[in-house]
Amino acid sequence: MMKVGMLYSGGKDSSLAAILLSRDYTVELNTFVFNPDREVPKVAAAAEALGMPWKKRTFASGFIDEAIGVLVRCGYPNEAINEIHRRSLCALAQEYEVVADGTRFMDRVPMLNPSEVQSFEDRMGVSYIRPLLGFGRREITRLVDRMLTVVYGETPMIENGDYEAEIREEMTQRGIDWSGIFPENHQQSLVCGRRIDQVGEYQ
Amino acid sequence: MMKVGMLYSGGKDSSLAAILLSRDYTVELNTFVFNPDREVPKVAAAAEALGMPWKKRTFASGFIDEAIGVLVRCGYPNEAINEIHRRSLCALAQEYEVVADGTRFMDRVPMLNPSEVQSFEDRMGVSYIRPLLGFGRREITRLVDRMLTVVYGETPMIENGDYEAEIREEMTQRGIDWSGIFPENHQQSLVCGRRIDQVGEYQ
Repeated sequence: MMKVGMLYSGGKDSSLAAILLSRDYTVELNTFVFNPDREVPKVAAAAEALGMPWKKRTFASGFIDEAIGVLVRCGYPNEAINEIHRRSLCALAQEYEVVADGTRFMDRVPMLNPSEVQSFEDRMGVSYIRPLLGFGRREITRLVDRMLTVVYGETPMIENGDYEAEIREEMTQRGIDWSGIFPENHQQSLVCGRRIDQVGEYQ
Repeated sequence: MMKVGMLYSGGKDSSLAAILLSRDYTVELNTFVFNPDREVPKVAAAAEALGMPWKKRTFASGFIDEAIGVLVRCGYPNEAINEIHRRSLCALAQEYEVVADGTRFMDRVPMLNPSEVQSFEDRMGVSYIRPLLGFGRREITRLVDRMLTVVYGETPMIENGDYEAEIREEMTQRGIDWSGIFPENHQQSLVCGRRIDQVGEYQ
């Protein structure tokens, strides 16, 4: 089967997307961090629960300064999160012919618009798959509940691979107040197990 | 598993969408015709090749007059095709809690925009799934080639469940010239077999 490089946070959406794709592709999970010393054991455990190979990857040094600059200049996270997401996809596109993520229908950020998708695919010579794009919230919940064990909580409590936690910590260390930039109650999810589904597709 | 009512033409896209969904849902295929006497044996055979239950359904009488009226007034097929597609989805939504179709990323017609999707789901109390929305042309071709045997050709030669053929015939019978309305070389596809894929998921 064709190999897919998937952006993976350990959360429910990228985990479900990985399971759906794994029926037709050999899925490799990839989680990006800014600081090469940052460990993300909960994400590694989530990948292990899915039974798929996983790699931690590191952005070029200096990218976090750029990202924090955009955050402070904008005063809200959307533009920075989109830029980080694009940077991750481009990095994967260096290594894989097919890249994927857990973007859902009606997600606002991160989200590539249709012409950005086409430009990304053409420019990088890759296919970009978003297995959840055609599913609404209710069906995603249905499939997640059937296939995965998930814990939910707010950003600092849930150690998934979301960029927000690492950026917040870095800003705190630099003495930059991020409280007005990131929303208070950003609900996160972390996969902690895979259920054997009815078709017996557990790997 | 949850039941899904899928719009089905017998073409490659709705067939691939049905296969992808069948891993997680019990898929029932539905093909709409205007004239209750119209037989679509090639579509029935394609459904049989997929190993999924299939039903021919008929639009309310008079709907073809409406559709032809829109076509003649607009002078191009988009608006009418969108209206027929919506009517089919609404009809399925009377009977199923989850409805689906083979709409792809960058399809222009038929296509519901995001707010139409949300309004449709809310108004009808259903989920609407488009399994192929997050896949580009190259990956769809890859999966179709692996899973399906397909014949290709132009509209009158390929007897799939596309509305265009039936509408053209009806317009011809009524002495309405449709040559300026429908494009000359509209490529169609018809599934004539399912390949055993590498995971052994052939049903």
